[in-house]
Parts: sequence; C-alpha cells; structure tokens
Amino acid sequence: MEKTIHMVYEELKSFLKDEQVTMNETILQQHSKDESYHSPQTPDMVVYPESNEQVISIVKIANAHQIPIIPFGVGSSLEGHVIPYDKGITIDFTLMNKIIEVRERDFLVKVQPGVTRLQLNKELKKYGLFFSVDPGADATLGGMAATNASGTTSVRYGVMRDQVRDLEIILPDGECIHTGNLAQKSSSGYNLNSLFVGSEGTLGCITELTLRVYGIPEHIVAGRASFPTVEDAVEAVVSILQAGIPIARVELVDELSIKQTNTYSETDYLEQPTLFLEFHGNEAGLNHDVAFTKEIVADHGCQEIQFEEDNAARNKLWDSRHHLAYAFIHSHKTKKQMVTDVCVPITELAGAIKHARQTIDSLGLYGGLLGHVGDGNYHAIVMIDLNDPIEVEKSEQLNQAIVEYALERGGTCTGEHGVGVGKMKYQQREHGKALQVMEKIKLALDPNEIMNPHKLIHSKRRGQ
Amino acid sequence: MEKTIHMVYEELKSFLKDEQVTMNETILQQHSKDESYHSPQTPDMVVYPESNEQVISIVKIANAHQIPIIPFGVGSSLEGHVIPYDKGITIDFTLMNKIIEVRERDFLVKVQPGVTRLQLNKELKKYGLFFSVDPGADATLGGMAATNASGTTSVRYGVMRDQVRDLEIILPDGECIHTGNLAQKSSSGYNLNSLFVGSEGTLGCITELTLRVYGIPEHIVAGRASFPTVEDAVEAVVSILQAGIPIARVELVDELSIKQTNTYSETDYLEQPTLFLEFHGNEAGLNHDVAFTKEIVADHGCQEIQFEEDNAARNKLWDSRHHLAYAFIHSHKTKKQMVTDVCVPITELAGAIKHARQTIDSLGLYGGLLGHVGDGNYHAIVMIDLNDPIEVEKSEQLNQAIVEYALERGGTCTGEHGVGVGKMKYQQREHGKALQVMEKIKLALDPNEIMNPHKLIHSKRRGQ
Repeated sequence: MEKTIHMVYEELKSFLKDEQVTMNETILQQHSKDESYHSPQTPDMVVYPESNEQVISIVKIANAHQIPIIPFGVGSSLEGHVIPYDKGITIDFTLMNKIIEVRERDFLVKVQPGVTRLQLNKELKKYGLFFSVDPGADATLGGMAATNASGTTSVRYGVMRDQVRDLEIILPDGECIHTGNLAQKSSSGYNLNSLFVGSEGTLGCITELTLRVYGIPEHIVAGRASFPTVEDAVEAVVSILQAGIPIARVELVDELSIKQTNTYSETDYLEQPTLFLEFHGNEAGLNHDVAFTKEIVADHGCQEIQFEEDNAARNKLWDSRHHLAYAFIHSHKTKKQMVTDVCVPITELAGAIKHARQTIDSLGLYGGLLGHVGDGNYHAIVMIDLNDPIEVEKSEQLNQAIVEYALERGGTCTGEHGVGVGKMKYQQREHGKALQVMEKIKLALDPNEIMNPHKLIHSKRRGQ
Repeated sequence: MEKTIHMVYEELKSFLKDEQVTMNETILQQHSKDESYHSPQTPDMVVYPESNEQVISIVKIANAHQIPIIPFGVGSSLEGHVIPYDKGITIDFTLMNKIIEVRERDFLVKVQPGVTRLQLNKELKKYGLFFSVDPGADATLGGMAATNASGTTSVRYGVMRDQVRDLEIILPDGECIHTGNLAQKSSSGYNLNSLFVGSEGTLGCITELTLRVYGIPEHIVAGRASFPTVEDAVEAVVSILQAGIPIARVELVDELSIKQTNTYSETDYLEQPTLFLEFHGNEAGLNHDVAFTKEIVADHGCQEIQFEEDNAARNKLWDSRHHLAYAFIHSHKTKKQMVTDVCVPITELAGAIKHARQTIDSLGLYGGLLGHVGDGNYHAIVMIDLNDPIEVEKSEQLNQAIVEYALERGGTCTGEHGVGVGKMKYQQREHGKALQVMEKIKLALDPNEIMNPHKLIHSKRRGQ
C-alpha cells in the first residue's frame, strides 16, 4: 500500500505545483478532524487543486489505484464527515474560492466550492442581494451543499437544497456532469441536484455551484421574547406559524444557554427560556406582523419582549446566538462538544425538548438546548471529557435517547448536520428498506467506493 | 406473449375483485391516452387496486413476468406519460383516493395517490388550510408528484417537489419503502423524496404521500395589468421580483390568448398583453405591496390596472386563466393542442417569448403564449390538425426551436409538464453525461425495466 501511495504522490506531482500536494505532518493533522468529538485520523496526503481539470486528474488517478478521496472545505462539519478513516487523498478546495458570476437580475450566483458564506455575502451586498443559508460557522458553500446545511433562516428561505440550481460534479470515474440548469424550476429527468446535495462527498466532488440568492429585505426587525418555560416558548412558535406570520428566524435558547451567552457575549438578557425572532418585509406589513406576534407571545405567558430595528443591536443579538456553541466550549476548555441534531414535526417539539432536558439531567450531564424551532429542529449541546469513558458513554446514551424519541414520532436523526460517521448507526432504523435503494445508487455511481468511504452509507471496502 | 398476458390476468383475478381488473375495450381506450397530442396505445389490461398490499402483489406478478406497469391518475398529463407504448398493466389509482390524515398544527396531510387537488383543498378548507400547487387541471396528487407539477402559485410556494415530505413507494421488486419523514427538514441519507418526485412512474408506484400545506392567507388581492407589449409585461415582472415583493401569482397572457378568454369565459378584458397578479399577506403589508406594484407597472407602460378583493371577481379572473387551454380547444374542435413548456432564467424570458411569437407567426401556425412568468416558465399553445402532416411537422419545428432557444440560455426543455415521451429527444442535449447517471439509477432500481418503459429515460426493452 505504501508503494501505491508513493506512486500516486509522484503522479500527482507531475501536474500539480509543489505546494499543491503535501504529506507534511502538520497539514495532515489539520485535515484529520472536523469540529466534532469524533476521533481524528490523518489522510495519506492533501492536495489543493486550482481548477476542475486538476480535480478530474486527481480523481482519475485515485480511482485507478482505488485510493479513497475525501473532499474538504474548512472542516466545520459536525459529524466527522471529513475524517479519512480509510486514509487516502484529502482534496482541500481552499484554492478554488472564486465567485465566478453574479447574475443580479436572475437572483443567481455561480461560485467555486471553496467560497465561504461570509465571502459570498460580502460580495452580494454590493448588489443589494444576500445568500440566505446561515449555519453559524463560516463554512464553504461546497461543504454546505455536501451536508445540506441550513440554520437560522431556513424557516423562511429553505435549506441548502432549496438554493442549489446546479452543481458541477466530478464523478468517481472522472466524468464531469451538471446536475441542473439556470431555470427556476425543471421537470426534466431525475432530479440530480437534490441527490448530490447532502450526499456528503460520497458520490463525487463538487467543483462549481449555481445558487439562488435573494434581495436584501426592505426592512428587518429582530427581537427577544422570554418565557417561563421552554414549552411555553415552543407553543408560542406553533401559534405564530399557525397565524401565517412569515417569520424569517425563530430560535429557541434555553435558560442554561442564555446564562452561557450572558457570560461569553457580555449581554444582560433575562435568564429565562428565550426566543430570538426576526421578521423581513416592508415596513407596514412588518409592523403588523410584530404587533400580531406580541399578542400571540403574550397569550403564551411571555414575560418580556424587546424588538431591535437598528443594525448594531440586531447584529449583537445574532452574534450572541451564533457564538453560543463557542460560549460552551470557552467555559469548558478541557472538554469536547457533542451536539445532537434531530428534527421532529413541530407539534412534537415541546415534548422532545422536555424529554431531552430530563435525559440530560438524569444522566448528570452538563448541556444546553437550543434550536431552529420554526423547523422543529433542535440541538442539545453537551460538554464531555473524552478521557472519561463514563461521560462518553452517557453522551452516547443521550444522543441515542434523543434520536429514538424523534424517530418514534416521524422525525429524523439529523435535521442539518448530516450523517457523517456519527449518525451511521441510525440509518437502518430511520430508512428501513430505503437504505438499500441508497446503497444501490452508491454502488451504481461509485463501484470502487473511493468517494469518502464509511460516511453516510456502509462501504464494503476494508473497514474503518 | 398473449399466453403470458392471460396467465397474468388469471393471477390478478385470484386476489382482485372482478371489477378491479379488466380487459374491457372501452376502459382500455380510456387508458390509451392523456391530454396531449401524442398518439394513443391501449394497455393489455387495467387494474384498480384498493390498497398498498394489492399494489405490491400486482407489481410482484408483473415483475415476475417482466410485464410493463403504467401508473395512472386521471390522465391529465401533457407529454404522453401514461400511454402504454409497450402494452402491459395500467394501474389506475382512482380507488385509492382517501385523505388519510390532516395534521393541522403540523401543516401536513397524508393522502392516497388518487386524491385530487380540488378534493384535498375542499377538505383542507375546514381547517383554514390549503394545498398550494395549482396546475390548472384537477389532477391526482400521485400524478402531480410523478411529474413534479407546478403552476400559478409556485413563484411563492414552490413546486410539487417542495411540498413532498414523504412518499410511500412500491419498488419494481415489490418492496415498500418510505422516501422521507414528517420533519420539516432532514440531512439523513440520500434525498430520495426529490428523486422519486418527477420520476414519472419509472422507478416505482406511489401509494401514499405526505404533503406540506399552508394556512389560508389572511388577505388576498388579485388584479390584472395590461401592457403595450409582452416585453413590457415581462420586464415589469422582473422589476416586481427585484423589488422583493412576495408576489403569490403572476401570469402572463398574450393578446391572442386574451381574445380567446373573452370569447370563451365571456369576459371583457382589454385585448392587450396582460399580467394576472395575486398577493397574499396581512392587509397592511398587502396594501403596501399593491401600491408599490402599481408604481412599478406604471414605469413599464402599464395601460390599465385593476385589483379585485372580493372572492367572486377573483375566482372569475383565475377561472378564465385556467380555462385558457380549453378556450383554445373549444374554438378549434377538430384540432389537437400542442403545448410547449420551457423554463429559462428570468432575464431571458422576454427574448424567449418574442422569439416564440416570431416563430409561430413565421411558420404560419395559430397559437397563444402564456406562462408563469415569475418562474421564467411559459407555454406556447398551438392548435394542430393531426391529419395534416405539414401542420404536425411545423408544430414539431416550433417545439424544437423553442426548446433549443431555452437550452442555449441555461434553461430546461420542461418547466412543469415533464419528459414523458414528448421531451425524450431533448434529454441528451439538456443533460449531457448526467443522462448516464440517470440511466445507472434507473437500471439499479428497475433492472427489468418494467416501470413505465420508454418514458423519461430510454429502455433497452423491446422498442417503441
């Protein structure tokens, strides 16, 4: 095997610059992990292609030698998606970070996979446009498509899958295809866009994305509403949705998480279960939506509600929400973060969150609850000491209890983080015989199973 | 072959009631065609299952004998999707027409595939809810999922694919799978929902659908705006979208089509290129949107704009739009209708429509232009005498010219009608090497190619 790796290295060197292919230990280490608690593993080498032609050549060489390929963005995934458990070549897309075209009046943008979300939004602002998917981290758009990322705004604008109009994909045999087109809708052929979005690098490498963007809303109002209990807050959200108020963000932050926020972000928010809300629209409609929302939350025992219209206060609010995961890490520096990610039908959410809190407490773990409640997607953030087998075992028990609760109620084991390695064990339970359909698709498109093996779907390759 | 068919008939009789399986010539004729101009062909027999267990048994028998299966709703497809060119068993889902469950507070409904759009909306109204996809025809929801139907409201609420949360599918080998779950979003496994939506019965039979529904908007306003030219009307729509006005419907009807409407629906609309518009929201926001829209259309030379708030006037407006296809048929009773269906990036729409009008006129055909301009999707409706080979040839030329214009500009050959048999010849041109990926998926899931052969994707079966 070592001989093969050396041969592949030499073949890659023949068309890549020295700095584009490396076996440097520090760089291998940087590509051995993501932001999850899953154990690291270094790849054999890391390559930095600059063009789709180079990706094609890399993939063809890997396929000829049946060496695994692991596409890599910035490593912000949360279920071990980019960890090369079967070694191989990690393709780092950092150098493919160009915004190729902004089609302003078509609300479309064409980008390379290494472009990050904030980089894109900075450029789009010049056109009065924005890209809606906001998972918190400044992830690459290639990575976000690979995991079907979403986040705080998906209740209004949809998830990553809803924004992808076309992907350029390099298949495992080196063929280059386009999965879609530039039209707003199409009923032509099987929908490959949605198949490749969320396929976590197991079917091919994304080398270009055409994405839908939106006009920056005329008017934005954000606010915070505090409730006596998490259930009250969740019920208020159900009522807001029921009333047809087109809310743009609605995030639940539980009491313990608000405490973390106040410490880390130096805010002085009431330490109660809280909804962070945002509305987009024209001023008249928005005033009506805000007034209606105030009535609804009052009916659900809201103790305090405060709206912010100016940019600075609004940004502070959302920064504090987005920094919440880091707030937990900051106050538990010797521990790792384990984040659950189920999504349930909205009417099951209050019960699910209550059950999660009880399970955290009964296991004696330390963790907060927060989530994109408009979608029925919530996270338990638990800090664990990876050197303490009992704590690790308890966190596993928590994850399992939360997933089982969701699956029993028609939910999913992952709302937005993806399967990676962490949710593999729930795939059979969640998908039943549909998993065999997925396996058939995987084998039809990647018969040598070189693409990100042991992620999302079981490989017959030499094991993990 | 005839012997096999007789054997299959007897096998089916063993578990289906007499009236559930038939070779009656009248019924075979009824299942030999759809609403398109494509030439008819009768199946060997028609079955009417009452349960998913019966569908499983039917599919297993067909698969064992390698007999084609053609799922059938009400036959309102427009590209020959349900025509059994390779004979076989047509499965008519008319008897599977139950609304199984309305999960009001989850905005979900579970239905059998034979439930029609209007049947569902009648039931949902009791809950203050509605199902958003409106293709005009009172199609079955199974059929609408199979073709990824859309229509007048998709600019605001999305297409069929966006509404499908879960499908129960009977695979060609008789296995029963679920493609999704009840959660609003999921990143678990490959997205089978979107693969099966739009697969036109070529991968399996839909036996149950879980669909997203919406609250009936607080306030609805509809209107008509007349313009000097089609280009002015289209440019006005681009400006409305650019302004971020969340328009719920925006339909273009050209001068010739307005004339048809006035005759057929006894309206007295100004015979000019016209936009039919609709806005959904709260009253305050809506008044603002309407006022803003008036300013925008005025900038684009709008000659007359009229809004209707009361139900009766609004229904008349949309009925006249939906009856447009029939209006053309009504005035050309000896002819068949050929409808084109491309979708282009919105900035290419004005040029595309202008090109279509010039092509219709230069070919000496009779036809109108209309479309869902907010999506960039438009139709040319042309009346042709199928016994006149020159007219048939000209209509083919028109379709081809329209498709090529769209494909050259990043569009698609079908925005909402699907491939069926009519758009097969454009699949290679549109999808290139991605078509091979589709073929691999088809063969992986339906190795005997029994599911609706010769539709969407080429079969190696004995040919058409």
